[in-house]
Amino acid sequence: MVNELRTATGAGLLDCKKALTEADGNIEQATTILRKKLGAKIDKLSSRSAKEGVIESYIHVGGKVGVLIEVNCETDFVARNDDFKAFVQDLCLQIAAASPSYVGREEVPEAELAKERDIAASQVQGKPPAAVQKIVEGKLEKYYSTVCLLDQPFVKIPEKSVKDLLRDQIAKTGENIQVRRFVRYQLGS
Amino acid sequence: MVNELRTATGAGLLDCKKALTEADGNIEQATTILRKKLGAKIDKLSSRSAKEGVIESYIHVGGKVGVLIEVNCETDFVARNDDFKAFVQDLCLQIAAASPSYVGREEVPEAELAKERDIAASQVQGKPPAAVQKIVEGKLEKYYSTVCLLDQPFVKIPEKSVKDLLRDQIAKTGENIQVRRFVRYQLGS
Repeated sequence: MVNELRTATGAGLLDCKKALTEADGNIEQATTILRKKLGAKIDKLSSRSAKEGVIESYIHVGGKVGVLIEVNCETDFVARNDDFKAFVQDLCLQIAAASPSYVGREEVPEAELAKERDIAASQVQGKPPAAVQKIVEGKLEKYYSTVCLLDQPFVKIPEKSVKDLLRDQIAKTGENIQVRRFVRYQLGS
Repeated sequence: MVNELRTATGAGLLDCKKALTEADGNIEQATTILRKKLGAKIDKLSSRSAKEGVIESYIHVGGKVGVLIEVNCETDFVARNDDFKAFVQDLCLQIAAASPSYVGREEVPEAELAKERDIAASQVQGKPPAAVQKIVEGKLEKYYSTVCLLDQPFVKIPEKSVKDLLRDQIAKTGENIQVRRFVRYQLGS
């Protein structure tokens, strides 16, 4: 049970045991406890400086699509870790397959966002303003999950977002990890 | 001798034989004849549309430098050719090692060029205007050979420029070949 919890949350052995005791052996409840605890830890780690890392690439079979990415972490030790490398390769696959345009929401240009907002609003005319706003926000969320790498569902495990994947890595390594930049080339486009 | 000529110029068997006859067996003269002939052919090929090709990447040992490139040719047949692939890999190595900023001169922004011209001019004050212009042009050529991929000396054979390498490929394949774009990531910079 402790191992199951560790795999699911990436938390340490001791934390998992504690959470299980606190939850009277209920694994779902223990997961929630750990997620909350880890969330605070991850938020704290996310503000730390990350200047090491790797440049990685992926060329899809046939050589018509290629990806180059830079992912930063805090130490060269983590950068050379196999699990971290596998994570970076997963990001490359994700970008090749799902073709995001930006790393995160903060990169979407204001003009693009205004355009999306207009399109969304024009599709829900004739409803009460409060409902319109809610629908527009929902459509924007959908837009983010299409164009932003971190907001996309992870192609290998669609129930997780890429951001979840990133937070798992931060929890596992105990270091801040950041996708700094990427580029995707498709032949002739 | 014919083989030597073919390797040096990339010209066909028949053309090499003809050129040797025309040059009375003088290989240097035959090379010049072929280069002129090929030059015209290459110039003609260079205007043709090139929409096939490959995306290729290179990650330098240690994962701190990476390159992604798109090179176009006319047919998928050439794109899958080993010699063409080796050429593209050479371009990746070149970019990783020599860190160019642009593919060719036409990509250098006008403002950059004006800045370089100013710097060059300020270094040669007090000379006759004709001499100044010549020196400035020389310094600009030097600048191009630093920042433009095609103008750079090829790292593996510095007597050749990357453009020479490209023209060799055009001659060998009989197709127009173009470096469409590339990007070079260096960790943290």
